[in-house]
Amino acid sequence: MDSLPPQTGPTPPSARTRVRRGRDRARYDRAEVLEILDAGVIAHVGVSTPEGPLVLPMAYGRDDDILYLHGAIANHILNSGDDQEICATVTHLDGLVMARSPFHNSMNYRSVVLRGRGRRIRNDRRKLEALRLITDHVVPHWDIVRPPSRSELRKTLVLELPLAEASAKVRTGDPVDDPEDILGPWWAGTVPITTRFGRPTPSTDLESGSGVPAPVAALTDLTLDERPQPHRK
Amino acid sequence: MDSLPPQTGPTPPSARTRVRRGRDRARYDRAEVLEILDAGVIAHVGVSTPEGPLVLPMAYGRDDDILYLHGAIANHILNSGDDQEICATVTHLDGLVMARSPFHNSMNYRSVVLRGRGRRIRNDRRKLEALRLITDHVVPHWDIVRPPSRSELRKTLVLELPLAEASAKVRTGDPVDDPEDILGPWWAGTVPITTRFGRPTPSTDLESGSGVPAPVAALTDLTLDERPQPHRK
Repeated sequence: MDSLPPQTGPTPPSARTRVRRGRDRARYDRAEVLEILDAGVIAHVGVSTPEGPLVLPMAYGRDDDILYLHGAIANHILNSGDDQEICATVTHLDGLVMARSPFHNSMNYRSVVLRGRGRRIRNDRRKLEALRLITDHVVPHWDIVRPPSRSELRKTLVLELPLAEASAKVRTGDPVDDPEDILGPWWAGTVPITTRFGRPTPSTDLESGSGVPAPVAALTDLTLDERPQPHRK
Repeated sequence: MDSLPPQTGPTPPSARTRVRRGRDRARYDRAEVLEILDAGVIAHVGVSTPEGPLVLPMAYGRDDDILYLHGAIANHILNSGDDQEICATVTHLDGLVMARSPFHNSMNYRSVVLRGRGRRIRNDRRKLEALRLITDHVVPHWDIVRPPSRSELRKTLVLELPLAEASAKVRTGDPVDDPEDILGPWWAGTVPITTRFGRPTPSTDLESGSGVPAPVAALTDLTLDERPQPHRK
């Protein structure tokens, strides 16, 4: 398993990881890649199937070297054969960038594209640890729920994807218009977009005794970025 | 070009479009597919490349039969050859579903998976119309910006993807726990997630004369779903 270097610096970790368009927005710094992954809740995961590419949203978690995935696509990957190339992309949409001409319209965003070979985790101890990381990635609460049974563990598919080949792309700030348009009559600016948690709602089948656990209650009104995380300082 | 039937009903439009996991959440109804597409701002678009699958976020627009894409991946698709299979997935994350056991944790979401052959639009009139649809999909404002020049139009790559092979998946509501866990000491419930526009911010290079255009100002505090759309009733 290749390990992501502590600081990949300004160069991409592999040829296929190089950002092709908008290179000035490319980031290959480990800390920035991990921060974008930590802020996200779902990845869009792509596989090549005999019927063409397939992209599905999936939950994920991570440790220092590996992204862990579980969900519907795990099944599809296993159907298509284990040990398969996959691409996991995490995007945060931070705002609309409205230029004086639609050609220069854009969006402010942060995204990570991770490519690599997905492998099914078969070892039960590693699988349990991966499920803990996936569960706590959303909000740390593994310690306050009923642990998975042996049968649940057996029914759960978990894939690991090395974090080695990741690149990030970040756009911030104002539109960049043509100089000759700047004095024109058109408006230009940005419109921020924020994704935020609301107030937790107890399940209708919940017995009255159980209050909202502290880490869940603490989500209220936080943005995705602000939520506490195992890896977040 | 296959046209999406007015009402595809309870059956998928093609074998590869059938939802494999969580079939009770599958939707193949045209109106529901289009509503989910209209609420979104970016799609995650996947292609199969010689170096494995690649998934990138892209802006999009639509008319009744076609999804239009432009952005970085258009270049990659053209590099890999025109007339290529692609998958465009649009996901709205509506909430966390927190069960009594992590095995039953889930998310509330709405997603559309569209598969088909992408084709580059070469006709200038059609390309201009597609760019209008992509521009107005975010917020209708094509009529109040500087129109694209001939040179800008030439530099812009636009792909069309038939809307024929689309499926939607929707999860709402409470977690579904094991009956024997319901009387246990664990909390269960949902945490809503909302994505919302903030207040438009003028570009720092904007001359003082231009006020925020009405359709842009109207976005303030709206959720993505609530924004006005060409296709939205």
